[in-house]
Amino acid sequence: MRLYIGNKNLSSWSMRAWLVCTAFDLPFEEVLVRFSGLDLAENTFTQTMQKLNGNGKVPALVHDDRVIWDSLAICEYLAELFPDQALWPEDRGLRARARSMSAEMHSSFVSLRSKCPMNITADLAHEGQALWSSSAELRQDVQRIEQIWAERPQLEGFLCGNFSIADAFYAPVVCRLKSYQLPVNSSSVQYMNTVLAHPAVQLWIQGAMAETTT
Amino acid sequence: MRLYIGNKNLSSWSMRAWLVCTAFDLPFEEVLVRFSGLDLAENTFTQTMQKLNGNGKVPALVHDDRVIWDSLAICEYLAELFPDQALWPEDRGLRARARSMSAEMHSSFVSLRSKCPMNITADLAHEGQALWSSSAELRQDVQRIEQIWAERPQLEGFLCGNFSIADAFYAPVVCRLKSYQLPVNSSSVQYMNTVLAHPAVQLWIQGAMAETTT
Repeated sequence: MRLYIGNKNLSSWSMRAWLVCTAFDLPFEEVLVRFSGLDLAENTFTQTMQKLNGNGKVPALVHDDRVIWDSLAICEYLAELFPDQALWPEDRGLRARARSMSAEMHSSFVSLRSKCPMNITADLAHEGQALWSSSAELRQDVQRIEQIWAERPQLEGFLCGNFSIADAFYAPVVCRLKSYQLPVNSSSVQYMNTVLAHPAVQLWIQGAMAETTT
Repeated sequence: MRLYIGNKNLSSWSMRAWLVCTAFDLPFEEVLVRFSGLDLAENTFTQTMQKLNGNGKVPALVHDDRVIWDSLAICEYLAELFPDQALWPEDRGLRARARSMSAEMHSSFVSLRSKCPMNITADLAHEGQALWSSSAELRQDVQRIEQIWAERPQLEGFLCGNFSIADAFYAPVVCRLKSYQLPVNSSSVQYMNTVLAHPAVQLWIQGAMAETTT
């Protein structure tokens, strides 16, 4: 099983699928395809990914000659492939909730995602402060995210109890809120710290730091 | 099981979940919450939906005291609840493909979705022509959609063989391409006609027409 990902410092979509593979210790090989220049003729990233997968984007999973693209579809595929691992919560109600919040992250929060691109190793506090003052949409996105996080079963736990795909989907947002130092309440800070302390998240962040220091 | 939806003429997200319920003849009650004015104090739509569901949006599904929100999470929930109905294709490879294209629709095609909002009963050919000339992003979105459609197993069939959640996810796009009369190739026209002839799609369109003529 091969998972194609982009730069760890920047690729929020890759991070989700990689975290699921790593957190659940699934047998996979990581293939890092670095983002390259904007010149399409020299863009080895686009060339590599388009050979694999029509939309030319990361992440993509190759398994048994199948190419599965899109982070959410990859996670559903993995959840089917490893049914004993509880990639989604085992309880039907919690699972439905985990899928609702993951799918909302997949389709929404356009302002946060476009204004605050993930850049794990950067200190973007100054940019964050300016964006926070000027953009009501950004503040609304963060407010909704805090509402979702606040409804987790235990304050000291993950979104639906144990670490699941839902947490992998919100981990890039945790990194954005941290880099841009957007103001959040203490319950949210606690959730962010829980996510940032997860061994798989730690490994990803170490990878991002290694990329940007070399 | 109650499915909360918005106006049939306009609500592309509602259409997806409703089509799945209707096409597979699932036992459900439709609750239509009409979009109301932009004044939040008078916005009965937002008030109704926020009581049910934190993000205040349609569609939402209520089943066994659970509230499931987001069209894709609702479809996954229904697929689990009715495992004999093949809401997703039965073959693992086709199912992975159906999920990949559905998740791509869920997160992408921002230009098409923002520039060409669904309006089933309107003739927007003039607007469509202007948008097509001016927006490279819109043309790119349509090109990628045509690429996905072209890879369907049979020219005369649905995206992954029989009608599945994937077709429900692309049905609103079919309606947009039709209303705005965006130029597409003959293979795409054939797929659009297949979708538009599906009894569930026909019923939704009749509902949209009834809304806009009264």
